Amino acid sequence: MNISKRVQALSTSPIRRLVPYATVAKAKGKKVYHLNIGQPDIETPMQFMESIRKFDEKVISYGNSQGEMVLIEAVKKYYKEWNMHFDNTNIYVTNGGSEALTLAIMTLCDPGDEVLVFEPYYANYKTFANTYNVNINAVATTAENGYRLPSETEIEKKITPRTKAILITNPGNPTGVVFTEEEMQMISRLVLKYDLGLIADEVYREFVYDGAYKSFGHMPELEQNLVIVDSVSKRYSACGARIGCLLSHNDAFCKELMKCCQARLCCPTLEQVGAAALYTTPKTYLDAVNKEYKKRRDTIASALAKVPDVLASNPSGAFYVMVKLPVDDAEKFAIWLLEEFDVDGETVMFAPGNGFYDTEGRGVDEARLAYVLKSEDLEKAIAILAAGLKAYPGKK
Amino acid sequence: MNISKRVQALSTSPIRRLVPYATVAKAKGKKVYHLNIGQPDIETPMQFMESIRKFDEKVISYGNSQGEMVLIEAVKKYYKEWNMHFDNTNIYVTNGGSEALTLAIMTLCDPGDEVLVFEPYYANYKTFANTYNVNINAVATTAENGYRLPSETEIEKKITPRTKAILITNPGNPTGVVFTEEEMQMISRLVLKYDLGLIADEVYREFVYDGAYKSFGHMPELEQNLVIVDSVSKRYSACGARIGCLLSHNDAFCKELMKCCQARLCCPTLEQVGAAALYTTPKTYLDAVNKEYKKRRDTIASALAKVPDVLASNPSGAFYVMVKLPVDDAEKFAIWLLEEFDVDGETVMFAPGNGFYDTEGRGVDEARLAYVLKSEDLEKAIAILAAGLKAYPGKK
Repeated sequence: MNISKRVQALSTSPIRRLVPYATVAKAKGKKVYHLNIGQPDIETPMQFMESIRKFDEKVISYGNSQGEMVLIEAVKKYYKEWNMHFDNTNIYVTNGGSEALTLAIMTLCDPGDEVLVFEPYYANYKTFANTYNVNINAVATTAENGYRLPSETEIEKKITPRTKAILITNPGNPTGVVFTEEEMQMISRLVLKYDLGLIADEVYREFVYDGAYKSFGHMPELEQNLVIVDSVSKRYSACGARIGCLLSHNDAFCKELMKCCQARLCCPTLEQVGAAALYTTPKTYLDAVNKEYKKRRDTIASALAKVPDVLASNPSGAFYVMVKLPVDDAEKFAIWLLEEFDVDGETVMFAPGNGFYDTEGRGVDEARLAYVLKSEDLEKAIAILAAGLKAYPGKK
Repeated sequence: MNISKRVQALSTSPIRRLVPYATVAKAKGKKVYHLNIGQPDIETPMQFMESIRKFDEKVISYGNSQGEMVLIEAVKKYYKEWNMHFDNTNIYVTNGGSEALTLAIMTLCDPGDEVLVFEPYYANYKTFANTYNVNINAVATTAENGYRLPSETEIEKKITPRTKAILITNPGNPTGVVFTEEEMQMISRLVLKYDLGLIADEVYREFVYDGAYKSFGHMPELEQNLVIVDSVSKRYSACGARIGCLLSHNDAFCKELMKCCQARLCCPTLEQVGAAALYTTPKTYLDAVNKEYKKRRDTIASALAKVPDVLASNPSGAFYVMVKLPVDDAEKFAIWLLEEFDVDGETVMFAPGNGFYDTEGRGVDEARLAYVLKSEDLEKAIAILAAGLKAYPGKK
């Protein structure tokens, strides 16, 4: 039988494709520090399981296609506290941020259309776009320039008649970079000039360590062009709940989106009950988590600063840092660390950087490190990485 | 901003689009018997909530992209009892049967390709295909012929070079028809002759009332072409759990499928824990449910037989019956029943038939009735329908 070209052309996830090597390493008794995946070790607030345990409907029946009203109300309230105002009809519950992204792309783009992204970017953006035969149009940022946006002229050059949306992550994954006011203004101008959709993936909104966060939802001029992607996964350390949402003030977008939501019937009932309860978690929880990650950010930043020949991004948000390593090929280095290297039976795993780039050949000597471990483990992990760099035969 | 043509062209769900009329009717104090949606009223087995309540991981973390192993093992065991043998690597957990269908279509078809279906068919098949720019190629079956398949020659005429898969529901939704051995052999011959994918949606497998059920998984010649779509939704009355799966022995298919599963990370953890527990429900549960639905089938079939000028399918499986009504337009009739008609403050709601047809103009005087209510309620509902037919101004 036929296998589609679209699926054959997809890449495997750079975050997950080295997992088999880690499995072998662990089977041999090696301890692996996982810096490859953004899986927080923070406890999920107890409100999640408590609310679910209390659920006592006799039939686990289909829910509302738009989402359970208790969750939509909770999201609305959360946004109101962030001084962003959405009505119930502007909020659509999704199967994680992942489905929010796929729904946004399919609703804005036809086959052959393009979504403009800034590379390096979250690798699954490309998979999501390509499964709908939508192309990624990548604007380069560089390690040397701290992964900051290029000039407005440079970006504008990349916009074509097929460009239908700009997709950004802020704070950034994999770079941890948070946009400046100037960068946001520049994006806003381009979005309005070309009447593009702006898909703003802001799932790391609560993870900003240097100053206040400004959302694209705080720019009223973008109201009709903005689609916000959100999720409880990172915010409340509930990645396995797979509950996200899409928010938009554009009525035409919402109307079309609803047809797609209806087709897949609804999101899971219990996880929505749990997610709604997560939004009742006291603000002190988010503050404490932010403080913990700030500590980890400081730990990994200062540990990396001591490793010779490593160029690291300056992460002021999310929980990733992008590094340029003095190696021939970061993917080979990652495999070598898992297969052939250890310090007292311990090694480290990261996501190779090339998978976060669209442009062939870029990111080969880069890596994404997720600082989702306790500070003492992070220090150990970076020390192992440094020792590995010294011993690695493919060092540049 | 641009809204994609693909999404603008989608129809709204025939099962859900009349909901606003029902909401108004209920607000006015009318009782509505819901025959429009396949939402069983059977209690979900207690194993579901019991297993979830016991879940005590501190972090609700990302799961395996393929699915939680406890659920994959449970599905494997269930299939073994049905004398179908799958390895763990042949089973992929999905967000309901819905995601299983979208994953199957995107993995088998590129834009412009066709999926062959027999109309009337489950309306969301078209939505799922069209969001991937895959076309539906519908082969007609008729109320007069009891919605049985046409001849092999008739079907073969519809197969084009762009036809990449046949998508069937067995037992059928919306007709309740179960394929005969001859029909299955005919489909099998065509699938093999043209090396098509066969997407077999068998979520109603346990709901067969006249004789034993044969799965396409029982035909070894189809091994490399068969993709089974399954779900716990109907089987265990757990529609809101949104847990389904895809099964295939075709390694190339599984390999490509896995890339798509990895992109959306994983299915929800708790619902998978619950679903795995559902598969430990004693066989007596499924037997009792089958017996209850057989009773309801008998009730609705004999009630419909008494209504003049109504031509009903002979449902030997699932919990739907497709009826041809003596009206100008079944959708208008459905709205009229909700807005203008009642018997002692009660009315009935069904899904208009046109939404289950691809061919313009077909199914206008047909309706799908889901017999998911207790027998006494079904009798009342059909009596109201009969009274409505008598009073309806648009009667043919």
